[in-house]
Amino acid sequence: MGNTFGQLFRVTTFGESHGRAVGVVVDGCPPRLPLSERDIQPDLDRRRPGQSAIVTPRDEADTVEILSGVFEGRTTGAPVAMLVRNTDARPSAYAEIRTKFRPSHADFTYLQKFGIRDWRGGGRASARETIGRVAAGAIARKWLRRTFGVEVLAWVRQVHALVAKVDPSRVGVRQIEATPVRCPDHPAARRMIRLIERVRAAGDTVGGVVECVARSVPSGWGEPVFDKLEADLAKALLSLPACKGFEIGSGFAGAAMKGVEHNDRFLCRGGRIRTRTNFSGGVQGGISNGEDLVLRAAFKPVATLMRPQRTVDARGRFATLAPKGRHDPCVLPRAVPMVEAMVLLVLADHALRQRRISRAS
Amino acid sequence: MGNTFGQLFRVTTFGESHGRAVGVVVDGCPPRLPLSERDIQPDLDRRRPGQSAIVTPRDEADTVEILSGVFEGRTTGAPVAMLVRNTDARPSAYAEIRTKFRPSHADFTYLQKFGIRDWRGGGRASARETIGRVAAGAIARKWLRRTFGVEVLAWVRQVHALVAKVDPSRVGVRQIEATPVRCPDHPAARRMIRLIERVRAAGDTVGGVVECVARSVPSGWGEPVFDKLEADLAKALLSLPACKGFEIGSGFAGAAMKGVEHNDRFLCRGGRIRTRTNFSGGVQGGISNGEDLVLRAAFKPVATLMRPQRTVDARGRFATLAPKGRHDPCVLPRAVPMVEAMVLLVLADHALRQRRISRAS
Amino acid sequence: MGNTFGQLFRVTTFGESHGRAVGVVVDGCPPRLPLSERDIQPDLDRRRPGQSAIVTPRDEADTVEILSGVFEGRTTGAPVAMLVRNTDARPSAYAEIRTKFRPSHADFTYLQKFGIRDWRGGGRASARETIGRVAAGAIARKWLRRTFGVEVLAWVRQVHALVAKVDPSRVGVRQIEATPVRCPDHPAARRMIRLIERVRAAGDTVGGVVECVARSVPSGWGEPVFDKLEADLAKALLSLPACKGFEIGSGFAGAAMKGVEHNDRFLCRGGRIRTRTNFSGGVQGGISNGEDLVLRAAFKPVATLMRPQRTVDARGRFATLAPKGRHDPCVLPRAVPMVEAMVLLVLADHALRQRRISRAS
Amino acid sequence: MGNTFGQLFRVTTFGESHGRAVGVVVDGCPPRLPLSERDIQPDLDRRRPGQSAIVTPRDEADTVEILSGVFEGRTTGAPVAMLVRNTDARPSAYAEIRTKFRPSHADFTYLQKFGIRDWRGGGRASARETIGRVAAGAIARKWLRRTFGVEVLAWVRQVHALVAKVDPSRVGVRQIEATPVRCPDHPAARRMIRLIERVRAAGDTVGGVVECVARSVPSGWGEPVFDKLEADLAKALLSLPACKGFEIGSGFAGAAMKGVEHNDRFLCRGGRIRTRTNFSGGVQGGISNGEDLVLRAAFKPVATLMRPQRTVDARGRFATLAPKGRHDPCVLPRAVPMVEAMVLLVLADHALRQRRISRAS
Repeated sequence: MGNTFGQLFRVTTFGESHGRAVGVVVDGCPPRLPLSERDIQPDLDRRRPGQSAIVTPRDEADTVEILSGVFEGRTTGAPVAMLVRNTDARPSAYAEIRTKFRPSHADFTYLQKFGIRDWRGGGRASARETIGRVAAGAIARKWLRRTFGVEVLAWVRQVHALVAKVDPSRVGVRQIEATPVRCPDHPAARRMIRLIERVRAAGDTVGGVVECVARSVPSGWGEPVFDKLEADLAKALLSLPACKGFEIGSGFAGAAMKGVEHNDRFLCRGGRIRTRTNFSGGVQGGISNGEDLVLRAAFKPVATLMRPQRTVDARGRFATLAPKGRHDPCVLPRAVPMVEAMVLLVLADHALRQRRISRAS
Repeated sequence: MGNTFGQLFRVTTFGESHGRAVGVVVDGCPPRLPLSERDIQPDLDRRRPGQSAIVTPRDEADTVEILSGVFEGRTTGAPVAMLVRNTDARPSAYAEIRTKFRPSHADFTYLQKFGIRDWRGGGRASARETIGRVAAGAIARKWLRRTFGVEVLAWVRQVHALVAKVDPSRVGVRQIEATPVRCPDHPAARRMIRLIERVRAAGDTVGGVVECVARSVPSGWGEPVFDKLEADLAKALLSLPACKGFEIGSGFAGAAMKGVEHNDRFLCRGGRIRTRTNFSGGVQGGISNGEDLVLRAAFKPVATLMRPQRTVDARGRFATLAPKGRHDPCVLPRAVPMVEAMVLLVLADHALRQRRISRAS
Repeated sequence: MGNTFGQLFRVTTFGESHGRAVGVVVDGCPPRLPLSERDIQPDLDRRRPGQSAIVTPRDEADTVEILSGVFEGRTTGAPVAMLVRNTDARPSAYAEIRTKFRPSHADFTYLQKFGIRDWRGGGRASARETIGRVAAGAIARKWLRRTFGVEVLAWVRQVHALVAKVDPSRVGVRQIEATPVRCPDHPAARRMIRLIERVRAAGDTVGGVVECVARSVPSGWGEPVFDKLEADLAKALLSLPACKGFEIGSGFAGAAMKGVEHNDRFLCRGGRIRTRTNFSGGVQGGISNGEDLVLRAAFKPVATLMRPQRTVDARGRFATLAPKGRHDPCVLPRAVPMVEAMVLLVLADHALRQRRISRAS
Repeated sequence: MGNTFGQLFRVTTFGESHGRAVGVVVDGCPPRLPLSERDIQPDLDRRRPGQSAIVTPRDEADTVEILSGVFEGRTTGAPVAMLVRNTDARPSAYAEIRTKFRPSHADFTYLQKFGIRDWRGGGRASARETIGRVAAGAIARKWLRRTFGVEVLAWVRQVHALVAKVDPSRVGVRQIEATPVRCPDHPAARRMIRLIERVRAAGDTVGGVVECVARSVPSGWGEPVFDKLEADLAKALLSLPACKGFEIGSGFAGAAMKGVEHNDRFLCRGGRIRTRTNFSGGVQGGISNGEDLVLRAAFKPVATLMRPQRTVDARGRFATLAPKGRHDPCVLPRAVPMVEAMVLLVLADHALRQRRISRAS
């Protein structure tokens, strides 16, 4: 249970970090969308391990195969299943954690929940599961762009105490992808990379914040009262591994504001009703208002450390964990395409949900 | 669509601010739970308008009637429908906004979405909709307490720049309910009340942060990978009116930490495996680990101001809104029972979902 | 659980036979539909007890109140809650069955499932629960007729061994409603009425078959592979009390046919692609093909007899049930609006689901 | 949409008849169940083409690969994905139907719905899609047998006008599997086989009825009021290709009975409350009563004929279809494992749903 996301653009992921394969089934993808593996692979490449010096060296090409749902280069309305075989799985590297719980990992809780645990590299709890999400997100991206002109962009806004200066309304993909840390404020990016290298050398890890903008989202997406657009976005982002916080628009800073400052005044610009400011972050009452969606997700530092850690085993006896495996010192650069994917999945779902309301009745 | 929350403890709310009634249907409430209106009313009383000098003076008793699902004082497994009649509805007070959009309200977006708008006091977008949630939450509270000993407590942690000092592991309901602002740090509470009174006198409003703890939650609740406990909590809280942010455990502060500090070391205490710190906030990999759940929700300042505001009407022409209606200068004290209700609904749902996994299996 | 039906036109019913009220929440009703109680009451009147000499004499006006979701005479997109108060509840009439299980009723199974049982007249298992369905179906009917010209008509085709001769493509509502047994073959109707009167005089009951046609259903409704239109219709009808069978098009008779006879040959008529015969019953591969939907539902004889019956009590001891309460000797005439309602709910749901597929995309 | 079945034992199928692969993701399979491909393959072998002289000669081994969710021979609670590669796909055999609609197939309706059509052998509408269902059903079978002792058996009860004599309470798997037509009444089986051979020689096809029993189903499974056990069974079976009717217990024959005959009298046998007869077919009020579930599904004759047929093309012009492809003259023998699979999926789902209700409350 819990491996499916969305109502009308519905995504089901499967697969473990060191099993045979990971993958996804996308049910509800609109028909007649031109689609091939070439539309999916670029986003997977931005997510994959080994892409730069500051991420995990696990060597996976993450080559995707579309198994179904596409005929003569177009989607048919049938479910699109996509598969990525694991090729650099090294389950033996995890033999030690067969009996010991890694701190702040899901080892203990999975065992408590299921009474059994796939100890190979986190199994299902691994960030490797997000391959299916990113592949599905790439389909959502193509459909949203072609149909509505929607553009979704994320970047690293903060690593540890280093906070970048970024204007969400102007930032472009090229600035973001220009550095391996995916921070479009390049002086800040250099400091972040140095910090990540220092942290890695110390066997430590570090957290941060990803920021995301969605542009050209039509007004009217989002469903009162439980499936508000911001509610589904919050769920989407908190479902990512290591995510501990979400905010939209003014977010936590808005808690320290007064109504007079915070209210987004309406005006008419270019024949459209717009708002002068955007503290709302593009949603009011759970429904998009036509302004940019702007949101942020906080990620804790990666729990796997390259230094010995004290812990307990399944019987509660103290034990020491030796550092092993191949891990990211900072998940932020690879979290960027994951955040984009989740935002895209929410938007595609709500775009389809809004279609039930016709202008005629 | 979007008026139902939960999978196995499933809540559907209905009703508008100035319509005939608001209410809720709870489907999936476990059978044989002793239940009467006396279990529901206290939480509604904590949510209701007019309860103190710092909230809206709208005069509603919010008396609940259980329509179904209870027989001879116990739930039967049938849906529990609950109804609260609106008695102090004054739709005429809203005549002005029939044609004008209130800034940072849902007026504009509802019209964009549905092509029609119930302009009486926000209609469905009003916080009055949360009556159904709070009533359902009271059932969840009773069942969770009796069955698992779970206790859920929320309080006001911050109003504007005033931040209280509260220890989530020790705070009790009496300290919270001792002041109308529901802040258990009483010196801070006094400052908050003075601030709210000043803000109200200025026709302005102010935001803040609610913090919440859930104690005695068993380990094993939460579903990988999309229905993580923290993901469903984030969705639950962001679905509340005016909520702009969510965090659990270390949250956004965790983004500025290193793995060595952040990892919650396991140890064995009282025969149980516990963690020494709780930066995880009670969840690891989306599943409860037996520690306290600790989370926070940011609320923006109330959008209704008691001073004239510039806006536009449906044709995009500039207009001025005269201050009218009866509103809270600060939603925080009344948000406390709403936050508790949403956390309770998520926990009840996941408690039932976990029951499908038997120890014997 | 299980009290909600539909994905996008979503109906949740509540209430027990002898509780305070029965009702329904309709979530997903399209906005801007003109709606008042006058649209609902006629279908409830066709379902209500006491409407003729051949149904139960329980005296209920079944007057519906719309609680929400309608503003200035039109739906707003918010959930439409509807309530019917029980006024002729006589729980004391059921005191005997507090401890005894009525044969072929749900007394035993509800107790086995929930460990508790509302013994007042069947509680939730009573056909009185269908009031919510019929009220919701009346909304679906109005929307489907206005938007697509869809017309749904059901009638009694069979009572015991008496089978009427009816041409589903020509029958009209006036012929059906002309007799209290709702059979448009009037000579057969007279025989049916005499049979029902005889059976009632003997304290016995009798089963039958309802047939239903849906006209002007556009092609393209229904979702492969599990949510086929016929699959959702089958579920809808089998969810009605006392229904034991469902068939569409050729149904069970089709099992005894050969492909050469059964295949519906395509032809072009009036510029549209049609089929010459309609053994398919309006669906092919789970999707409507533009022909009339034709389906049938079998109902067992009512289980409540007006003569003593042998049974056991909760401890398994033999007991005798005295005849009591007020019941239908034959459920068929009142099942007609229930069947229509369920078919309407399925069609409204699939109409909305099909809207996600735009011609443009 | 529509490619997922079940709430807690949730099955999502994907893949087309002549695409790369077909498969399924099972989400919600209980953890710690011993499982390997050897548990799945036997049911796939009973479903596969080419297994006998009276089914289609398409040559597919239908070898299943488990991709995820199993670790060290046991399920982990993670989704179980299973894949079967298509090896004898011959899309070119279908070139003719690229532009012509086969009568009583889904060609026309898929095009109407999606605006595009995978014409290779029916694409998604092919019975080949049921491979995923049968694979998932094999998991459900193993879990239900080990946990509850549930046994599900189906057989061919009728082919055209030939009706077998079978006692559902006594029939065993060996009698069923002893003949290629899967009819345990062996004299009838011989006549059925001869009929199928004759029909095939004539280029024609023939329909029939599958009957199914589920034994040792505990009382208490099924959810009032919409998710009744018989309602979910009806949906499950009507979702199978070519199924046109469903009945449970007395079914359509019950419509011609009186209450005095039809009521299943309670008695106490072996310390358990049982019924003397079983016209209810194992369910009362939508909930299992501990008696055998007995149900039947009607299948129309296969629509593909081995003789020329008149039809129209996409522009509505008359055309003739030449006989091509490899097809079953009678789908019944291969429908047997499909029916079992669907019944097993419904039972597994309701078994898990019932677990939420604890004896303790």
